[in-house]
Amino acid sequence: MVQYSPTPFNASFAALADATRRGVLEQLARGDASITDLADKFDMTLTGMKKHVGVLEQAGLVTTEKVGRVRRCRIGPRRLEEEIEWIARYREVWDARFDALDRVVDELKAREESDERDNRT
Amino acid sequence: MVQYSPTPFNASFAALADATRRGVLEQLARGDASITDLADKFDMTLTGMKKHVGVLEQAGLVTTEKVGRVRRCRIGPRRLEEEIEWIARYREVWDARFDALDRVVDELKAREESDERDNRT
Repeated sequence: MVQYSPTPFNASFAALADATRRGVLEQLARGDASITDLADKFDMTLTGMKKHVGVLEQAGLVTTEKVGRVRRCRIGPRRLEEEIEWIARYREVWDARFDALDRVVDELKAREESDERDNRT
Repeated sequence: MVQYSPTPFNASFAALADATRRGVLEQLARGDASITDLADKFDMTLTGMKKHVGVLEQAGLVTTEKVGRVRRCRIGPRRLEEEIEWIARYREVWDARFDALDRVVDELKAREESDERDNRT
């Protein structure tokens, strides 16, 4: 069995897999907002927005706090650093592999050209 | 209504929201493999692995090709560039906001210190 990254960022990627939730994060990055503000801005019911905020909260991307009768939402503690790192590492492995392939192709080409020269002389 | 990113990367983030699927991508970044190879490596049934590969394929992260009786899997055309860009842009907005807050706090502190000096003299 292969060793794969055990980091529990399933929840954050799942939270990002929705355009409204990404929009809510972009909005909260600019400033805190209540669930009602967010529901208005995204033209959504309060219940619908509460669910989206719940998913973001469980992923650590948003925190909420009840202030009087209003639930304030703000950007959570997670900065998606591990997620960026994972994607970057994945692309590195991939690039390294294609660089290696390129080198093999270049070597084959060089050998072919050298053979052609040898045949001509 | 707020304008939010319409880029359709719901599928790619959803595909990344599973440790096995991230593992499969890491594995394929190192080299092509058949569904059977992948099922063995991840200690999973063929049916289970086919489903995971299907999700990755629909997200454009993997392509498959039937060669004889074997289905070969390889890394797909999508390089997750838009996903990295989205996360980076989100963090930029957030950082800018906190930098602005820091400046306000610094100004308030400076004013307070200046007031204290004025009171002492």
